[in-house]
Amino acid sequence: MPTIDPGRLLGDLRRLAEIGRYKTGVHRPTYSKEDMEARHWLVGRMREAGLEPTIDGIGTVLGRGAANGPRLLIGSHLETQPHAGWLDGAMGVIYGLEVARAFRDDPACRGLAVDVGAWADEEGHYGSMLGSRSFCGTLPEAEIDHASNRMSGKTLRDALAEAGLAGRGREQLPDGRYLGYLEAHVEQGDFLDAGGLRLGIVTGIVGIYGYRFTALGQQNHAGTTRMAARKDAGVALMRLWHALEERFPQVAGPHSVWTTGRITLDPGAPSVIAGKAEMLFQFRDISRERLAIMDAALLALVAEANKRGPCRIDHEVVARTEPRAMDARFQEALEQAAEARAPRLHVRMQSGAGHDAQIFAQRLPAGMLFVPSIAGISHHYAEDTKDEDIVLGCQVLADAAARLLGGRAPGGR
Amino acid sequence: MPTIDPGRLLGDLRRLAEIGRYKTGVHRPTYSKEDMEARHWLVGRMREAGLEPTIDGIGTVLGRGAANGPRLLIGSHLETQPHAGWLDGAMGVIYGLEVARAFRDDPACRGLAVDVGAWADEEGHYGSMLGSRSFCGTLPEAEIDHASNRMSGKTLRDALAEAGLAGRGREQLPDGRYLGYLEAHVEQGDFLDAGGLRLGIVTGIVGIYGYRFTALGQQNHAGTTRMAARKDAGVALMRLWHALEERFPQVAGPHSVWTTGRITLDPGAPSVIAGKAEMLFQFRDISRERLAIMDAALLALVAEANKRGPCRIDHEVVARTEPRAMDARFQEALEQAAEARAPRLHVRMQSGAGHDAQIFAQRLPAGMLFVPSIAGISHHYAEDTKDEDIVLGCQVLADAAARLLGGRAPGGR
Repeated sequence: MPTIDPGRLLGDLRRLAEIGRYKTGVHRPTYSKEDMEARHWLVGRMREAGLEPTIDGIGTVLGRGAANGPRLLIGSHLETQPHAGWLDGAMGVIYGLEVARAFRDDPACRGLAVDVGAWADEEGHYGSMLGSRSFCGTLPEAEIDHASNRMSGKTLRDALAEAGLAGRGREQLPDGRYLGYLEAHVEQGDFLDAGGLRLGIVTGIVGIYGYRFTALGQQNHAGTTRMAARKDAGVALMRLWHALEERFPQVAGPHSVWTTGRITLDPGAPSVIAGKAEMLFQFRDISRERLAIMDAALLALVAEANKRGPCRIDHEVVARTEPRAMDARFQEALEQAAEARAPRLHVRMQSGAGHDAQIFAQRLPAGMLFVPSIAGISHHYAEDTKDEDIVLGCQVLADAAARLLGGRAPGGR
Repeated sequence: MPTIDPGRLLGDLRRLAEIGRYKTGVHRPTYSKEDMEARHWLVGRMREAGLEPTIDGIGTVLGRGAANGPRLLIGSHLETQPHAGWLDGAMGVIYGLEVARAFRDDPACRGLAVDVGAWADEEGHYGSMLGSRSFCGTLPEAEIDHASNRMSGKTLRDALAEAGLAGRGREQLPDGRYLGYLEAHVEQGDFLDAGGLRLGIVTGIVGIYGYRFTALGQQNHAGTTRMAARKDAGVALMRLWHALEERFPQVAGPHSVWTTGRITLDPGAPSVIAGKAEMLFQFRDISRERLAIMDAALLALVAEANKRGPCRIDHEVVARTEPRAMDARFQEALEQAAEARAPRLHVRMQSGAGHDAQIFAQRLPAGMLFVPSIAGISHHYAEDTKDEDIVLGCQVLADAAARLLGGRAPGGR
């Protein structure tokens, strides 16, 4: 079995966390100056590790290993949510790099081939998993033409040009090159931490249905417009939000989640009735059937709101990913590696967060490994994981990769 | 009786509407480049009208008339709400200018003295009626030191410095100079327009109680945080907002109004549970007793929300103006002038909007005249009033001023 280098692993993670540092976390939105600095830094580290690196036209950094023979792809993403954690995405990328180095350094592993990928915009600043979808062939040029930043409105084309990526080709997943895809990630919930567990073997990734609601009312003076005469777009969305919060517990499954992440009133002044209001709402579940039930409930509430008036509420799908199961043999390899290094301190679990692995799972056998998030904190600069858990996760990922490549676990389909 | 010049009046209003034009309206926030351009333009027009103009340290433009004898102060404000109408405030200022010119042009009126004022920030970008409060002696330096822009956060001191006003003195209302204060304004509601009426004589101005609510929760991942474990600051404020909308109809008076003009979730990303949320809420009524009842209901709902948890909701008073009655003799003079020019097409009514007149009413007899707002549209660029109503309003204001100054109506207290 290969042996990873804890100091090298943690050193690279800490160096990477300096790029875009915000308090104890990182602010590194997709294609920002900091995000691109991180990608170019990674290119250098890959080259030192004996990988052949490229940055393609969507920002994906791909490091190809020199070995021949059965090959795995290991990766995750480099960009972060706004003012978020240092490990979300970054850890999985550096794990891939460290596994490649551990294989290189171990004579017994030198025939085992690993490519390492850092995908782009898994966090959805401009779209939905742009890098892994581009690599897997499900990101058409037309979608790139029409995408823009969810916060600033900057077009994706402008962002790619500013990042120096305009005109570059986009790498494509070659048929037959890989046995499969592996990704490690912080759990982002408190299931492992609260249970005193150190590793999670992911059985599947939830689907995400996301909507933008827009209410159109009549902007007017907040002092002179009688309550009965108002068309308050803000109140209309608040009532829909309230109805969703009342209804969803009745139709949701035990692990369903739903969230309003943003609401804005236009013009947003204290003495003006909002003439327009927007709201971003999403829900997630591991079951397609459950997602369909929740979706129907949502659409019924929107229809009721529009029947009641006085504002019109439009809805637009802004995210739709279906749930994806992880490969059974990859789960088994990860579980055997986990049991060997941390007996009885691992568990099979679903992922409530979306991950690039759900894109790869449409083309390849895929597996995912979780390490604990302290107190479950995620998408916040206070996100953290114990050093010993970071180190353990990387070792288990290396072991599982060696098992899968060495034939000691069943091979790819 | 003086005769106003309709072409001169409408021409000045249309010229002023060019400064900061936005679609069919105006965007001229307090102390913006456009706002200051408007103030300097007014200085020139005042000088041409024979008034002695100054701009003071809070931005107030005061034009002193040369005549001696009983004197009225006539004014309103020049700045606008964001992307709002061309008449809100501006009309009352130009009415004052036109009344001064009509008196100057009529030999029978030359002994009647008028000063004209354009106050600052009646619309509340930085505070609450800064100009009229400064003039009336209720704006302490410490409040100026601590005020900042509600949208951008820019400090008032910085804004005054950028506007070239730093270091200037602030004009003070002299005891005994004025018989009283007159202000004309668009109604900003649909009461006159819907009733086919042309003039409103204001009996009193509502009080406004405004709050900022801040909810503190726990920012976290929208996919991995179980519903039961969440502290969603956005949901907490939505539930308070919903409770306010359910409760207020039970405690409000027939003319009470209440409005949430803004709500923001932090960080405002689709896949992040809001760790913090802010909301601006206000309510208005003409009765102090009613305001107290509504205020108690609001505080009870906040207390209930905090008892229920899981987020803490803090409240901060951001506006508190008490209702103010207009002077009975000023109402009578306006009503007599209205009846002479538009028999039976006028009505006594309350003002649901705040106005500088409520500040002056604490020091002087004050009167207000409304002209119709087409369809009641206000604080929106589509705000408008028929030309013939604009002209009629100015003529009636001039007539009422002449009555008050000429002693044909009872004088000031």
